[in-house]
Amino acid sequence: MRALVVGGAGFIGSHLCESLVADGHKVCCVDNFSLGNKKQVSGLINSTLFSLKEIDATDNDGLDSVFESFKPEYVFHLAANSDIQASAKNPEVEYRNTYTTTFCILNTMRKYGVKKLFFSSTSAVYGDKRDEVLDENTSNLSPISYYGAAKLGSEALISAFSYMNDISSLIFRFPNVIGPRLTHGVIFDFIGRLRKDNTALRILGDGHQTKPYIYVTDLVEAIVQFMDVSKGVTLYNVGVEGATSVTRIADIICEEMGLKDVTYQYTGGEGGWKGDVPKFQYCIDKIHNAGWKAKYPSDNAVRMTVREVLKEG
Amino acid sequence: MRALVVGGAGFIGSHLCESLVADGHKVCCVDNFSLGNKKQVSGLINSTLFSLKEIDATDNDGLDSVFESFKPEYVFHLAANSDIQASAKNPEVEYRNTYTTTFCILNTMRKYGVKKLFFSSTSAVYGDKRDEVLDENTSNLSPISYYGAAKLGSEALISAFSYMNDISSLIFRFPNVIGPRLTHGVIFDFIGRLRKDNTALRILGDGHQTKPYIYVTDLVEAIVQFMDVSKGVTLYNVGVEGATSVTRIADIICEEMGLKDVTYQYTGGEGGWKGDVPKFQYCIDKIHNAGWKAKYPSDNAVRMTVREVLKEG
Repeated sequence: MRALVVGGAGFIGSHLCESLVADGHKVCCVDNFSLGNKKQVSGLINSTLFSLKEIDATDNDGLDSVFESFKPEYVFHLAANSDIQASAKNPEVEYRNTYTTTFCILNTMRKYGVKKLFFSSTSAVYGDKRDEVLDENTSNLSPISYYGAAKLGSEALISAFSYMNDISSLIFRFPNVIGPRLTHGVIFDFIGRLRKDNTALRILGDGHQTKPYIYVTDLVEAIVQFMDVSKGVTLYNVGVEGATSVTRIADIICEEMGLKDVTYQYTGGEGGWKGDVPKFQYCIDKIHNAGWKAKYPSDNAVRMTVREVLKEG
Repeated sequence: MRALVVGGAGFIGSHLCESLVADGHKVCCVDNFSLGNKKQVSGLINSTLFSLKEIDATDNDGLDSVFESFKPEYVFHLAANSDIQASAKNPEVEYRNTYTTTFCILNTMRKYGVKKLFFSSTSAVYGDKRDEVLDENTSNLSPISYYGAAKLGSEALISAFSYMNDISSLIFRFPNVIGPRLTHGVIFDFIGRLRKDNTALRILGDGHQTKPYIYVTDLVEAIVQFMDVSKGVTLYNVGVEGATSVTRIADIICEEMGLKDVTYQYTGGEGGWKGDVPKFQYCIDKIHNAGWKAKYPSDNAVRMTVREVLKEG
């Protein structure tokens, strides 16, 4: 199969590219290298199944050229802003990099008659519903971040484009995703801070923010397992057992770095920043019943990731 | 109060401007006159409470200038594509005129600290759920038109911007809206066709498409009644008693035009066009319980509108 992976040089995208190439698919990785990085796919660069194009997914001419030359049968759309704290100050980042990328990709699929899509959505579409166990039928989705809003808007676009153009779309609502080659997020930040100063660690919020963390290979396995869906939109919450608090992450990192007596300096407040959802828990019965289960519970995924990031140096 | 009505020279917007001016509010009407028309607000042009600016709501500089000079306290956002059949062929129309307008307006409100918003959403956000009675808690919203997708994306933006910037937002999901100065839609089209040829009438679909039609003055009354809401998003389905089929509309028009023996030529199929939702019915308990009820049931609204459009010539 000819698979176009947009945002393929990003953290999750690069793992997906590896998995698709390993399965014998021809993969074209498209990235604008704003958050993605050529190093992420350096292990694939010599594969005859793999090609890499520097294209911004909001550039319609660029998309035209790759759809014409590569003739994709399947589009995996993972291009988005992933720096959610930054976009809280500048919503245009989400308008451009998260919503407009989706619109341009769908409109190009429509033009070239490409009928299969995978889209990486997020738990952030639900908003702050900490007292509810969130499943795919939860109503009143009320995102509190510009990121969540742009992803929910993208899901709406996929609904209409799929109906109007007979596209088969698979949408996963991701929890926090971690693992080798991580580029951002709480684990990445904490390790960076502790390398500079191993006596004290500044922690945003009160440390009780508690979220499920999935290991990236688990997630990629689910994408590949479910990628053939029927016409219309198939939606899954993708999650793991358990959830890990920010303080527990700090504890695991200190253990793995062999640090004792680190003073935690909490900035206070429930969320790490405005628009952060401090707690959520998924109901993942739907994807379990469909035959997939994550290998690694949240705490294990965190510990494995910490070890990988420490190794990467 | 200083009220900015974006899309104020459109069909619904112009009625809202009239009502706000009648209540003594200072109104600035912003329109790009692509679908709106200066004639729609000609009755207001001599009012000292009313001003009119030709600005496209995707033009950030234009929005800046009007926010700086007029200093709105309340923004009524009714700017959108309203030609849904046209956008079915060109989704960029919805991306630009329905979604991007909302983004730019919200981002400008954020910049200038404007805290009150009204937004005109639509039944099209639900998608084709003809077997369900749709209420505000209905889940799995799955728009089948680019128009519905852009409106649902706009609702998501409003959710995030309201949370992040302490904005109080009122969202109405409109059914079909009709009345004096109608510029488009089935009544407008049928009358136009019968004026050209009063022996036969081409009807898109099978004529059984059945929707609630609300009279525009009823709708505007509801907007004004509920416009002061608390922080966050308040959402209402706005509807009427009953619903009217397309064939019934044709019958009413023929009666009012004094035409007998008109042959109805159905193009066939359930929907009028791809992306058209052939049937829907709202649960309007929430707005009824809050103290508002439409004066005119759907069939009456249709007949009154037919008389107005015939008078307008």
